[in-house]
Amino acid sequence: MKVAIIMGSDSDWSVMKSAVDTLRSFDIPFDITVASAHRTPNKVREFVQTSLENGAKVFIAAAGCAAHLAGVVASYTTMPVIGVPISSEPFKGFDSLFSTVQMPPGVPVATMAVNGAKNAALFAVQILAVANEDIQKKLVDYRAKMEAEVEKKAENLKKVVSEN
Amino acid sequence: MKVAIIMGSDSDWSVMKSAVDTLRSFDIPFDITVASAHRTPNKVREFVQTSLENGAKVFIAAAGCAAHLAGVVASYTTMPVIGVPISSEPFKGFDSLFSTVQMPPGVPVATMAVNGAKNAALFAVQILAVANEDIQKKLVDYRAKMEAEVEKKAENLKKVVSEN
Amino acid sequence: MKVAIIMGSDSDWSVMKSAVDTLRSFDIPFDITVASAHRTPNKVREFVQTSLENGAKVFIAAAGCAAHLAGVVASYTTMPVIGVPISSEPFKGFDSLFSTVQMPPGVPVATMAVNGAKNAALFAVQILAVANEDIQKKLVDYRAKMEAEVEKKAENLKKVVSEN
Amino acid sequence: MKVAIIMGSDSDWSVMKSAVDTLRSFDIPFDITVASAHRTPNKVREFVQTSLENGAKVFIAAAGCAAHLAGVVASYTTMPVIGVPISSEPFKGFDSLFSTVQMPPGVPVATMAVNGAKNAALFAVQILAVANEDIQKKLVDYRAKMEAEVEKKAENLKKVVSEN
Amino acid sequence: MKVAIIMGSDSDWSVMKSAVDTLRSFDIPFDITVASAHRTPNKVREFVQTSLENGAKVFIAAAGCAAHLAGVVASYTTMPVIGVPISSEPFKGFDSLFSTVQMPPGVPVATMAVNGAKNAALFAVQILAVANEDIQKKLVDYRAKMEAEVEKKAENLKKVVSEN
Amino acid sequence: MKVAIIMGSDSDWSVMKSAVDTLRSFDIPFDITVASAHRTPNKVREFVQTSLENGAKVFIAAAGCAAHLAGVVASYTTMPVIGVPISSEPFKGFDSLFSTVQMPPGVPVATMAVNGAKNAALFAVQILAVANEDIQKKLVDYRAKMEAEVEKKAENLKKVVSEN
Amino acid sequence: MKVAIIMGSDSDWSVMKSAVDTLRSFDIPFDITVASAHRTPNKVREFVQTSLENGAKVFIAAAGCAAHLAGVVASYTTMPVIGVPISSEPFKGFDSLFSTVQMPPGVPVATMAVNGAKNAALFAVQILAVANEDIQKKLVDYRAKMEAEVEKKAENLKKVVSEN
Amino acid sequence: MKVAIIMGSDSDWSVMKSAVDTLRSFDIPFDITVASAHRTPNKVREFVQTSLENGAKVFIAAAGCAAHLAGVVASYTTMPVIGVPISSEPFKGFDSLFSTVQMPPGVPVATMAVNGAKNAALFAVQILAVANEDIQKKLVDYRAKMEAEVEKKAENLKKVVSEN
Repeated sequence: MKVAIIMGSDSDWSVMKSAVDTLRSFDIPFDITVASAHRTPNKVREFVQTSLENGAKVFIAAAGCAAHLAGVVASYTTMPVIGVPISSEPFKGFDSLFSTVQMPPGVPVATMAVNGAKNAALFAVQILAVANEDIQKKLVDYRAKMEAEVEKKAENLKKVVSEN
Repeated sequence: MKVAIIMGSDSDWSVMKSAVDTLRSFDIPFDITVASAHRTPNKVREFVQTSLENGAKVFIAAAGCAAHLAGVVASYTTMPVIGVPISSEPFKGFDSLFSTVQMPPGVPVATMAVNGAKNAALFAVQILAVANEDIQKKLVDYRAKMEAEVEKKAENLKKVVSEN
Repeated sequence: MKVAIIMGSDSDWSVMKSAVDTLRSFDIPFDITVASAHRTPNKVREFVQTSLENGAKVFIAAAGCAAHLAGVVASYTTMPVIGVPISSEPFKGFDSLFSTVQMPPGVPVATMAVNGAKNAALFAVQILAVANEDIQKKLVDYRAKMEAEVEKKAENLKKVVSEN
Repeated sequence: MKVAIIMGSDSDWSVMKSAVDTLRSFDIPFDITVASAHRTPNKVREFVQTSLENGAKVFIAAAGCAAHLAGVVASYTTMPVIGVPISSEPFKGFDSLFSTVQMPPGVPVATMAVNGAKNAALFAVQILAVANEDIQKKLVDYRAKMEAEVEKKAENLKKVVSEN
Repeated sequence: MKVAIIMGSDSDWSVMKSAVDTLRSFDIPFDITVASAHRTPNKVREFVQTSLENGAKVFIAAAGCAAHLAGVVASYTTMPVIGVPISSEPFKGFDSLFSTVQMPPGVPVATMAVNGAKNAALFAVQILAVANEDIQKKLVDYRAKMEAEVEKKAENLKKVVSEN
Repeated sequence: MKVAIIMGSDSDWSVMKSAVDTLRSFDIPFDITVASAHRTPNKVREFVQTSLENGAKVFIAAAGCAAHLAGVVASYTTMPVIGVPISSEPFKGFDSLFSTVQMPPGVPVATMAVNGAKNAALFAVQILAVANEDIQKKLVDYRAKMEAEVEKKAENLKKVVSEN
Repeated sequence: MKVAIIMGSDSDWSVMKSAVDTLRSFDIPFDITVASAHRTPNKVREFVQTSLENGAKVFIAAAGCAAHLAGVVASYTTMPVIGVPISSEPFKGFDSLFSTVQMPPGVPVATMAVNGAKNAALFAVQILAVANEDIQKKLVDYRAKMEAEVEKKAENLKKVVSEN
Repeated sequence: MKVAIIMGSDSDWSVMKSAVDTLRSFDIPFDITVASAHRTPNKVREFVQTSLENGAKVFIAAAGCAAHLAGVVASYTTMPVIGVPISSEPFKGFDSLFSTVQMPPGVPVATMAVNGAKNAALFAVQILAVANEDIQKKLVDYRAKMEAEVEKKAENLKKVVSEN
């Protein structure tokens, strides 16, 4: 059970690194590549095919501007595809959000927030956890840890407020 | 393996009916209710709890305007949550799309197109299919049927064009 | 008669500090915490409950992106809730404004300008002043002082203009 | 303890009627008029003055397009002002929302959803309830009734779903 | 020298008919089909290939929502591709415009106005006219006729104004 | 002292009629034509020239979509040019507003609200009134009449409210 | 014949300085002040009154966010009012443009581009030039100088291009 | 067979340089100038005329804000006109995109992405290649080189990922 990650440009790596970090923290294996829906359409098709053969069960596709990558991946597989609209100048992700989320009936793309790389990885983990209790348990732990962090921040804030 | 559907208002039914139809066409059992993140917050929490106990593995939440429902559901479970922004006057789904998709790191919502009820159901099926080859096969058949329909439309169009 | 302030993230403090400063300048006591509608839903519910028991009469909730916090607070109380949409990248508060203001009939949130922390505090003071003539008098003084400041700026400007 | 309602145009009445109905259901007395920030600036000032003398404790101002009315009312009083952006062609309330909510520091307007007349009245009631336990009790009843209505809709939906 | 027209859905025909009418009025031969970038990706690739073999020198691609069709066609050929964003509910072509025009460096799509089917055909004719004086002459005639029509409308208007 | 009105399309007449009616109510003579910045650029230039020779002191230009007309007129004259962005499908005047108002330094266009034909005429009258006391007096009367109409509407509303 | 300039905040001076510079380059006298539609409503009314008594024939009003200043000025006079929407965080002038331009029928504001201070001054000059041939001549000179500058830039560019 | 490039301002050069570089890499001769649709309308008309006489077969026009330049060029010629909306403060190209793309039926402008200078040049080359096999071959080579670059980036990424 693998995740396959595809980015439209190597400049998306600074955003997508947190997806890789998150998958690693859950010990989920992944394939990753750079392939452009517009500049290398054949490479996209081949990467989807190879990833499926290698056991990919979920795809994460990240792209900016006229962000077609997630949609193109979804057109080649019935495995779940998660789209990450990347923010870029001048439209700040407004263009990539619309291009990723407004898919026609029949070919869904699960769209995350703009630059939502960590959530893309978490959602991939949540999908794999549906049929895997070990991963499910890790997700529950992850939430508990997150709650504890917010609690700690709340206590820090109280100090800051009382000192200001 | 069930899907749980929750709508913020009974007026969302006209849109969400196609989600129900799609789940039924794949023989996927589901629970469904109306519960508002703002008007009945306790009911939302209880429905999530009950659905989980009944075997829900995926949630679909549909809401309009300040569409918090999918996010609230996601705050109560680590099961995958699919959000359907509903279009309504005057902002046409612009508000519900932003409210649904721009989730903070840690709590993802898989956002569909505005009014994308059918794709929400399809994506739920795709999630369940990850660990179920029978459903996976049905999805492949679904795609083939969809392709055949487009092909038929293309042939109809040729006639229309030549006659005009 | 207290005000309760809740922020979705400790990074909102740089904006919300001016709300605290403003409440202090009117000698209004307040409780403050960090709690996330999505990451710590139970903490939000408990903070609302505790604050009410401690005498909170007005709530101020600040959050960015899919800013559900004010709406969630409003779902738990009939006390007035003031929402402050926080600006963040990439949508600059466009997403948080829509998520905060477009509440459904029955559960209002009094929405301030994006990053409008000072006005949130002032509006909380205005609510408390409805039944308290001392606070009302302070508000009238506040306005007079504000007018004097604008007048002073106008005089400074005249000098600047004549010297340029 | 009265509420004062001011509309920029008599065409706003179709939207604002539900504010009047809501205030009446809570037995809250109110003054109401039509006065335009741009066409009758003196009338606006006089209405604010007269309403204050008549005991108005909260103002509700509704306007469309370059919706300055709530801001102008707020410039004349330190009593709480609730703004209702009205939707109109061609910008659907986008213009009136921005014109109403983006107030400068010092003069807050509590902005409701576009066309949010009912919530404006409810929020006015919530403000008056801060210092009035009888009204507070009515608000709690109102919420309970609202919950029951959603519950009833959920049950109706179940029938509809099972029959479809 | 042929033009190839591809529509993402047969519902686009009501808009695209004027492209066909315009090409016919210039006696430009064309191929036309329905093929979806997402539902029938292989059919798109094959249509591009076949059209090129049949002598297509310009492509026109029309699609709505997450309008990837023109970009996908452009990824398969170095012949000029003209994109027509189609308007649809709820975002009125805002989504399709961004999805069509914001192409990355290296793979241009010549984007027309939303629903600009006639201009897509005219621009295809203008491209073919670069190397063909007969077509160029027809374009000059077309402009002259258009000017005459505006002149006639101006005269009609004068009558209408004087009679009103 | 004349006003010159130019519309990009005869379909703009339904909006611009109120400009003509307003000018007539002030007894201001005017020239009017249909001429398109894109379809009949020479006609636009000639109309500006002829209007200036006929004594035009103010220009009103109305256009939709990529609304260049007012800017083009302003490029040919130093007389004041008033722009009326016309609303049309699908972008509702959003495109025409931006195209009309965002003029570069050096060539101003006085932009009115979308479809603001009456205000364009009123503003033309206001310009002419700067040097003409008779017209100035009519403007003051116009305002007084407008105030009286609002007052009457306010009284009607009171009846409606008390009867409902 | 004077121009009166009013800014909502002294922070607008950095933008509005070019309006003052432009008026000075045409030897047009002006009054200038800072006065806020919301913080000092009485001062705005008085400044309009005083300016009219001092011979102001055109008003320029500049404000950001919920930019009501130009509309408020226009409500107090029938002299032409020119509005300059000021850009500010987070909405970049989107809010101030809508608040300035979308005036209701009866009370026009001649809206310039966001931050269009120079054009506001130029348009004021154009209004005054309608009845003053000397100013008109200066405007014609101004345009000629502007053309010469563009011509010079074009020649510089040619060098740059040939050297790159 | 030449390309003619026209920029509304010399500040557009930093963006448009890549168009010049691209044309040079294909050995396509070009004319280039700065001319403003609003500040130097006659120069625009003359440049179009001169360029046509010099053999220009395609025009590229780049402008920001109320970007009328491409439309004005298209009004003077039936040769293909490619528009490049330039991004500028405060609206980031949103205004220039709408002003460039929303052309009326009859006068198309082939719009590129905001700041899409390289694609404008590439599309001009694609137009010229329709009737020139040598250029066509260069385009095919260009794509192959682009694919190889993406492939190289993908390999670099793999290293980066494995080392992180």
